[in-house]
Amino acid sequence: MRVLRSFCTVRGFYSHTHTTAKNRRGLSGAAMRLVQFQRCAVGDGIRVGVEQGEGLGVVDLKAFDPSMPSTMRELLELGDKGLACAQRALASGQFVVDRANIQLLSPILAPEKVVCVGMNYQDHCLEQNAPIPKEPIIFNKFPSAITGPYDDIILPQESKEVDWEVELAFVIGRRGKHIKEEEALSYVAGFTVANDVTARDWQLRNGTQWLLSKTFDSFCPLGPALVTSDAVEDPHNLDIRCLVNGDTVQKSNTGQMIFRIPALIAWVSKFVALAPGDVFLTGTPPGVGVFRKPPIFLKKGDVVECQIDQLGSIINKVV
Amino acid sequence: MRVLRSFCTVRGFYSHTHTTAKNRRGLSGAAMRLVQFQRCAVGDGIRVGVEQGEGLGVVDLKAFDPSMPSTMRELLELGDKGLACAQRALASGQFVVDRANIQLLSPILAPEKVVCVGMNYQDHCLEQNAPIPKEPIIFNKFPSAITGPYDDIILPQESKEVDWEVELAFVIGRRGKHIKEEEALSYVAGFTVANDVTARDWQLRNGTQWLLSKTFDSFCPLGPALVTSDAVEDPHNLDIRCLVNGDTVQKSNTGQMIFRIPALIAWVSKFVALAPGDVFLTGTPPGVGVFRKPPIFLKKGDVVECQIDQLGSIINKVV
Repeated sequence: MRVLRSFCTVRGFYSHTHTTAKNRRGLSGAAMRLVQFQRCAVGDGIRVGVEQGEGLGVVDLKAFDPSMPSTMRELLELGDKGLACAQRALASGQFVVDRANIQLLSPILAPEKVVCVGMNYQDHCLEQNAPIPKEPIIFNKFPSAITGPYDDIILPQESKEVDWEVELAFVIGRRGKHIKEEEALSYVAGFTVANDVTARDWQLRNGTQWLLSKTFDSFCPLGPALVTSDAVEDPHNLDIRCLVNGDTVQKSNTGQMIFRIPALIAWVSKFVALAPGDVFLTGTPPGVGVFRKPPIFLKKGDVVECQIDQLGSIINKVV
Repeated sequence: MRVLRSFCTVRGFYSHTHTTAKNRRGLSGAAMRLVQFQRCAVGDGIRVGVEQGEGLGVVDLKAFDPSMPSTMRELLELGDKGLACAQRALASGQFVVDRANIQLLSPILAPEKVVCVGMNYQDHCLEQNAPIPKEPIIFNKFPSAITGPYDDIILPQESKEVDWEVELAFVIGRRGKHIKEEEALSYVAGFTVANDVTARDWQLRNGTQWLLSKTFDSFCPLGPALVTSDAVEDPHNLDIRCLVNGDTVQKSNTGQMIFRIPALIAWVSKFVALAPGDVFLTGTPPGVGVFRKPPIFLKKGDVVECQIDQLGSIINKVV
């Protein structure tokens, strides 16, 4: 996705309140909650912003510095220079857009890769009597599956068995190949919440290649923010939950991961060069619909909420 | 990949010869051979060009019209307007770059999707005693696997069983979802030659998900040109061959395809919206190394040539 438009000044669009101590809670050093958004009623396409705190006002990066790019992928491609500018923007407390005036988009769009890991929670393997994998099982979604943190999940007429999978996602911040495990975390720009929506009936068709089951349009809600790495104390100790219509259906901790983030980065980068913006989904804990007795699948009108501590929630209605 | 640089005029770079009748042979109406190239010794990144004929001079589109984009994906996103400009550029016979001064790149880079089809030739199913699939088997490569028509195939140290697969590729020219079979060919911008390089040992690992075996960096040579649809009389009647070190190892005709191009477009667009630049690889005929007795795999120094009538050849050295 390429959106390169001129900046339209809208009178009264920005509130120039300075960041308060309360707004900064949970953020320290370079810690930031980066978002992508669209300004309602302006229609000038994607913009990158920095949240003043979870659910609070968003500093419009391009308004702060018109030389900054309009998309997260381009921002990440700038490396430290881009992140430093985002920090200055946050510190300025200016060019703050009210949440009511924006639509939050996925914090990353059009990445080169959406890398997914199957069977990566001990307790998820147990629930299906599957052996613990000896190597990561890597599959993917097309980038076109990505949708926003509060956007609808579209039930395709081709499937009767659409299921939820809450997952911790991380986003690559710099290019690398054959990355060593001990250096791998330095390649992570930040973390976000994902729902690896899956059409179970298609997982068994298509010659058992999972791609089609995983990549229907809207099958990858992401967000609400890209929480930068230094804002997350330990990504392998985060409570992770999925609620369907308010009922908790998945509940675990990222400490249950079999292949942890450094191992996944080292593994995948043996095959392919990783690039800024690449998204990894790290696998789902137990509690998916297909292994319930009887199985439960998503239907029109359901609301799926995926929550991860320190990162936030994505809430997607099924339509 | 985003390359947006200013145009550097190089004295004597262009030969202003007009297109001769000989050069136009095989092209009629909007028929064109579109390429992407880099100008050696200038280093100004990717450019789109139009061949004056297979292997002949290349008209530099951005030199002809500086408002034109620098990449094929962007050109395709312009739709008819972009192709009409490319036709005018070709007709002008000006801004012709000599082949000796350029490096030909893959005709498409950084597509949103590289869609691949498994087991799609009758005779390839026969060679492995596999049943004819009742539905297309869809998998994919990451766009990072794409490499140029004369670039090296890099043998990864992680595989000992790297194999060739010549395939007819086509590129999507306009956005569509739930495309009807009878309208599908109007979504094809053109055709090119692909080698679906595959690490056979990894096809059986990774939980039998094919992605990793197919997506090592350099495992998707494409080219030499995107031959526009109207230049190809019948894409389902093209001789297709693969030669390793000059010996013909694969030889068939695209008429052997089980699921033809319209069926593939209709099928995949049930799952995902197709976008300009999306690449489809349509499956390989028999003669791959793994089914030979004994099996043969690529080794350093081998030269693989994939040929398709009316489209041309890609020649990649294994390193």
